[in-house]
Amino acid sequence: MVPRILNAADGGGPLLQLERQILDASSEIEHWFRSQWLSHTPPFYASVDLRNAGFKLSVVDTNLFPGGFNNLSEDALPLAVQAISAAVERRCPDVRRFLFIPENHTRNAFYLTNVARLVELLRQSGLQIRIGTLIPDITKPTPIDLPNGTTLLLEPLIRSGSRVGVEGFDPCGILLNNDLSAGIPSILRGIEGQQLIPPLHAGWSVRRKSHHFAAYSKVVAEFSERMQIDPWVLDPFFATCSNVDFQAREGERCLADNVSIMLKKIQQKYDALGITQKPYVVVKADAGTYGMGVMTVKDASEVTNLNRKQRNKMAVVKEGMPVSDVLIQEGVPTLEMVNDAVAEPVVYMVDRYVVGGFYRVHAERGPDENLNAPGMKFAPLAFDESCMQPDYASHPDDAPNRFYVYGVISRLALLAASLELEQGGQAV
Amino acid sequence: MVPRILNAADGGGPLLQLERQILDASSEIEHWFRSQWLSHTPPFYASVDLRNAGFKLSVVDTNLFPGGFNNLSEDALPLAVQAISAAVERRCPDVRRFLFIPENHTRNAFYLTNVARLVELLRQSGLQIRIGTLIPDITKPTPIDLPNGTTLLLEPLIRSGSRVGVEGFDPCGILLNNDLSAGIPSILRGIEGQQLIPPLHAGWSVRRKSHHFAAYSKVVAEFSERMQIDPWVLDPFFATCSNVDFQAREGERCLADNVSIMLKKIQQKYDALGITQKPYVVVKADAGTYGMGVMTVKDASEVTNLNRKQRNKMAVVKEGMPVSDVLIQEGVPTLEMVNDAVAEPVVYMVDRYVVGGFYRVHAERGPDENLNAPGMKFAPLAFDESCMQPDYASHPDDAPNRFYVYGVISRLALLAASLELEQGGQAV
Repeated sequence: MVPRILNAADGGGPLLQLERQILDASSEIEHWFRSQWLSHTPPFYASVDLRNAGFKLSVVDTNLFPGGFNNLSEDALPLAVQAISAAVERRCPDVRRFLFIPENHTRNAFYLTNVARLVELLRQSGLQIRIGTLIPDITKPTPIDLPNGTTLLLEPLIRSGSRVGVEGFDPCGILLNNDLSAGIPSILRGIEGQQLIPPLHAGWSVRRKSHHFAAYSKVVAEFSERMQIDPWVLDPFFATCSNVDFQAREGERCLADNVSIMLKKIQQKYDALGITQKPYVVVKADAGTYGMGVMTVKDASEVTNLNRKQRNKMAVVKEGMPVSDVLIQEGVPTLEMVNDAVAEPVVYMVDRYVVGGFYRVHAERGPDENLNAPGMKFAPLAFDESCMQPDYASHPDDAPNRFYVYGVISRLALLAASLELEQGGQAV
Repeated sequence: MVPRILNAADGGGPLLQLERQILDASSEIEHWFRSQWLSHTPPFYASVDLRNAGFKLSVVDTNLFPGGFNNLSEDALPLAVQAISAAVERRCPDVRRFLFIPENHTRNAFYLTNVARLVELLRQSGLQIRIGTLIPDITKPTPIDLPNGTTLLLEPLIRSGSRVGVEGFDPCGILLNNDLSAGIPSILRGIEGQQLIPPLHAGWSVRRKSHHFAAYSKVVAEFSERMQIDPWVLDPFFATCSNVDFQAREGERCLADNVSIMLKKIQQKYDALGITQKPYVVVKADAGTYGMGVMTVKDASEVTNLNRKQRNKMAVVKEGMPVSDVLIQEGVPTLEMVNDAVAEPVVYMVDRYVVGGFYRVHAERGPDENLNAPGMKFAPLAFDESCMQPDYASHPDDAPNRFYVYGVISRLALLAASLELEQGGQAV
């Protein structure tokens, strides 16, 4: 089952043209990606949130510590194993022991199921894996029961000189699935002789969404030039405000101005293209994740008239970290529907390969709302086809082709993440 | 559905131990393969015939021009696309146009369906593909209808200086699926500036099975040393006779002596291990394929008492090429059964990855007979699980584990093929 595109019934708008263009140019596109990967190293893994507005298909978030591997279809798993093997071969062929460092959750069954899935995939690719936890309360190996009846063993990290491991296990590589929102823990600082994947500056204490989207804009600019398309179709407008304090109501002017300017820019685009929807922007923490610190805004006055509850909500993100840098991003409505619920594709990549994806399907939210919200109750709908089997003979919007296009756009963000990480967390 | 192993009911013999050992050592094994691929380049693609005797699990043939991609399951196809992408990235990232040269068949629907499948996979991996044929009668682009209603366009090869292509298409890479049994055609000699994959000396006018199995023995020796197992479990005995002329009855003494010696060696092994089966050997053309020029022998007298029909059958192989070099190979009975039919796994690899496989299931042949015979009517049974998702918690003979082990053994042959090709067709 594949979500239908709301406006596909009208015979196809600009996006069908884009899909057809991408299909027709697939050999050029793959060739271009190959040449890019000669000079850039993709992240070990990543997931990307896409929004398909019919007139626009854009990346709206890129996660370098992806959860949700458990939402992929069974068919995607061998692809992930093969891609992990390729990733290991390329970056650390001599590595056989990996330490996996998850988020500090012990009760979030969804997240723990993701950890179990990732650990299994890593093991199937031929690595020895142990799980080291940053949770200070875990001082001895602690089994955590999973809903499916299996058990995860969390072990306390042990620092030994400039290396980190768990009891009796000195790993060559350390795979972080903990996004370091709370800062870089001292036990992970100054590591030598072990590969930290991704590097520490990929964590949210250093990373900024705006740096990612600046890199994404560069990548999209080059791609669009080659494809002879308007980069705006793939790239949402964004702006930033620093030194914002929602509690103290500091920085509201910057926010209001940027929201106002951006809404005008979007309206101009909409007018030029005959799009009748109402523009909106998304205001979110530049260093936040988990869908926390996010609000949808349709008028500049909304950011200056926040009530206490709204201010509290925007002021802190995961791990209680205060928000200071804020991203204002063009809102891209999703027009994909599963029955009456809105759906948003999430695409998973390992190394340079698109291994699969799923839809966040959310019955209680609108097409212009954030589907990745705290406590979100979404139903994952795994892609039932791979993202790399375009069917040139069929309609550009048929599932294999739509997924292929999603994979191409997602890889633009993957390449952007490479550029971003190469800059060590600085602006590209 | 997975074939059952005939003697698995007895609770497991030596092979279960081997499977368990391989599972337990999987991280060491994958690490070892990674280190091997640092210094050796795998063939672009290959398929391997395995025989599982219960007490022995061995490669009996390695095909560097694999057909039968159409027999893989749908699930294997994205893996093949991903592996082709990896293969192209590694060996020729700057290539975007591939010429595909198939066998000279225009009526073999099975083979043509394989060509269509391979061309589709190559295209999905982002390459521009045209099909150039060596058939002299095809002097203009000629559509060939396939059973599924699609069409393949065969185009005559055009040589231009030191490059080859088809009308209006100058490829960077040339992928041979024609095994060159009839010799290296002049149009492919002296090519410069284009990659020929595999190299011309992989073709049967140069290649010798005995060179492959000499390399395989070397690889198995190292692997067995690491695994602390008897290499014979993975490696069939082999010997060669040159200057054999079946028609003129020359070389019979060499054949009979070698058959006799080998049967004794096998019997000694069988006696030592308490195996009660009757040993047999397979006599086959050292440079033959398509299951032609193959006979099963249980007594040396059989090779000296060939009747005219048998001699005719052994004297020539594909394309009418006379047999002169003969391989005498230990027969490995297959104990895998689908209902009452014997089954033999065929494993497919692209680059260093096992992408899938199928069983040749043949109701009319015995467990000690060649299932890849001229005009064979086998029913392909696609592997319904990947070869890279071992399930460490379950029985070593459960399907994911059996397929993983098959993948490991097949990759030993893949590595052997790398060594073999590095020697330019000479003995390793």
